[in-house]
Amino acid sequence: MAEPLRIALAGLGTVGAGLVRLIEANGELIERRAGRPVRIVAVSARDRLKDRGVDLSTYDWEDDMTALAARADVDVVVELVGGADGPALTTARGALKAGKALVTANKAMIAHHGLELAELAEKQSVALKFEAAVAGGIPVIKGLREGAAANRIERIYGILNGTCNYILSTMEASGRDFGEVLGEAQALGYAEADPTFDVEGVDAAHKLAILAAIAFGARIDFGAVDVSGIARVRAADIAQADALGYRIRLLGIADCADGEGLFQRVQPCLVPRHHPLAAVEGPTNAVVAEGNFSGRLLFQGAGAGDGPTASAVAADLIDIARGDVGAPFSVPVAALEVRPAADAGHRTNRTYLRFTVADRPGVLAEIATAMRDAGVSIESLIQQGRPEEGGEVLVAMVTHEGPEANVAEALRLLEGSDSLTEPPLVMHLLG
Amino acid sequence: MAEPLRIALAGLGTVGAGLVRLIEANGELIERRAGRPVRIVAVSARDRLKDRGVDLSTYDWEDDMTALAARADVDVVVELVGGADGPALTTARGALKAGKALVTANKAMIAHHGLELAELAEKQSVALKFEAAVAGGIPVIKGLREGAAANRIERIYGILNGTCNYILSTMEASGRDFGEVLGEAQALGYAEADPTFDVEGVDAAHKLAILAAIAFGARIDFGAVDVSGIARVRAADIAQADALGYRIRLLGIADCADGEGLFQRVQPCLVPRHHPLAAVEGPTNAVVAEGNFSGRLLFQGAGAGDGPTASAVAADLIDIARGDVGAPFSVPVAALEVRPAADAGHRTNRTYLRFTVADRPGVLAEIATAMRDAGVSIESLIQQGRPEEGGEVLVAMVTHEGPEANVAEALRLLEGSDSLTEPPLVMHLLG
Repeated sequence: MAEPLRIALAGLGTVGAGLVRLIEANGELIERRAGRPVRIVAVSARDRLKDRGVDLSTYDWEDDMTALAARADVDVVVELVGGADGPALTTARGALKAGKALVTANKAMIAHHGLELAELAEKQSVALKFEAAVAGGIPVIKGLREGAAANRIERIYGILNGTCNYILSTMEASGRDFGEVLGEAQALGYAEADPTFDVEGVDAAHKLAILAAIAFGARIDFGAVDVSGIARVRAADIAQADALGYRIRLLGIADCADGEGLFQRVQPCLVPRHHPLAAVEGPTNAVVAEGNFSGRLLFQGAGAGDGPTASAVAADLIDIARGDVGAPFSVPVAALEVRPAADAGHRTNRTYLRFTVADRPGVLAEIATAMRDAGVSIESLIQQGRPEEGGEVLVAMVTHEGPEANVAEALRLLEGSDSLTEPPLVMHLLG
Repeated sequence: MAEPLRIALAGLGTVGAGLVRLIEANGELIERRAGRPVRIVAVSARDRLKDRGVDLSTYDWEDDMTALAARADVDVVVELVGGADGPALTTARGALKAGKALVTANKAMIAHHGLELAELAEKQSVALKFEAAVAGGIPVIKGLREGAAANRIERIYGILNGTCNYILSTMEASGRDFGEVLGEAQALGYAEADPTFDVEGVDAAHKLAILAAIAFGARIDFGAVDVSGIARVRAADIAQADALGYRIRLLGIADCADGEGLFQRVQPCLVPRHHPLAAVEGPTNAVVAEGNFSGRLLFQGAGAGDGPTASAVAADLIDIARGDVGAPFSVPVAALEVRPAADAGHRTNRTYLRFTVADRPGVLAEIATAMRDAGVSIESLIQQGRPEEGGEVLVAMVTHEGPEANVAEALRLLEGSDSLTEPPLVMHLLG
């Protein structure tokens, strides 16, 4: 029998326990497909006594997580601790420095330290894999790195956060507002007690930065992602979008449309009702890659959860067992290009703008004048008849296609106006 | 610089010419990602003088296709001739016997001779890859073999033929009948002059047999696919399905639900309007794999065309350039299980039945009696008010969930009845 691939598992939360269950349940099948057994030999987590619903008695327990990397009987360390820094990063660095392969589901760590870790892996000629860090169980990193490898990627975009998609699609189906649906999502386990990272778009931005690096052969630049979240989207925006034939989805979008610069943005967008992403509901993720020969490829599935995430981790392990080392970002780190953040001002878009205004004469003229003065052409305008609570009125409009800089200028002209009761909400239409 | 991967290209039809264009256009990028150049050294096709819109002057021309495999300066033969047998098979066998890797887009050849070719490849320790044989540019074979490798696949199903999907979704959008839309599809190049292989479901069956072998670790059994096409679907069926909340799609479906047997069927099915496959329109393909840990994974994109197909062929070449040999069907041929065709009679389904009947009293009673006597319970029944041309009346019904054997028995009881003006159309509802 072929030598087993020997795993040390750091972190036994839901995903860690899921991986243990998966390897127990599908071990024989994995052995057949990998050509050798994939076997957990040692585990480590904070609390040894916690009941995780899986039998850990056949694995060695290490109180000290860093000891996993030092074991001579380990080929791969699987890091499922989470967090960009701290024990996760220490474990990851330690594993690679000790010449072990590393598999991780940690998007924050890869978004912040992925290049350093990839360099370490290259130096040691070991694998660094993180399929589970983006879009849960969907093999989208493999799809980009390998499946679409022969293409110049023109654009990559998708629904990268299941919590936000659950909230938006539930708001859409129920007509309810953000706060109420968030509370329900928390009760159902689709949102964390502290939902900031999800609803503010940070989690999606981590994933987008990773995808963009692979798609465009560029050094990861998480700090350059232009991020806005969904907390300010109202039921009324969803209704307006619907009336125009659109659905609102939080999208991560990246391209190199202006040649040099890398454009990366996470933002709620209006998606045409017939676009496949408009049909994505609940906590599902979906990623579109547009290749210059493949055309539009769509990858869709569960974006989180113990089973799907463990499935992606185990796929990385099978690749390693089959002897695939590969460059973590598709090309060696030294070959990744340094791409400055693209200047978004030149980009042309159709834009949805929603103003929340005082219910008094002249406000519409003020907004329309600012648009005219900034050269923004209005395609359609909807002023809601009935004031919202508190006497506010919503004015929503969609612009004709035009430069983002003009819209920004119009908003600058309106800045400080006492007609507006809150900053305007800006969402682009997916083109 | 690393040694180039040297390609011999057999067949210069639209896909062959597309591959030449792709390697010309994206060669530098491919070299960066593959770690070495991928270079065409020799080509062969029937007609040397034909203008294919690409410059072939830098490649050696071989009049005799079998000479490609004999060249010492070739690492991989790419077979893009087509056809299950004949020159394609001769070229493929010759290449593998000569110890060259083989990449092909030829679904018919793989469906009929895939195991023989895989055994040859294993014996020679060379790669045999056929990503382009299934679903054009979509990396679904990679998705199954590698991305979902850690899962027991519960079921695989999808839209595997772009011609049929174009016809069905156009019938749906326009209300027109099959014959008329087929003519238009031929004029637009979405259907062949002889559309039999596509509209009768044979092309989809080739692809399904390949996917099923990989998904279930079973020996390919194309002959066991239960195939029906779309030629008998009428505009009226699409309208009935719509009224019930369904869209009609030609699906390939495979599972091992009864434990031992392998179930493989290509059939027009009723897909619930909110299922992602219902939203797939035009010549697009989409494949769903349901894994026991991953949950439902969806892969979608262009199912045909020179660019997408060349993209998939080139992805295989990049994998080979990176050193990936791998088992063509995910596990070695000797480890593939022999699975008998599943007995469909035990399967339970909700079923759409459409009868074309003479417009006279008693016909409905005759049908209803046959259903009752066979133990088929009717959930809803629609008798169309206005007779079709020729005085026919359509009677459509959906059964409650029940065994297929009962429906078959009901149809047997109605066989030979002079009330029916053509054999009933049977379509299952995707569950």
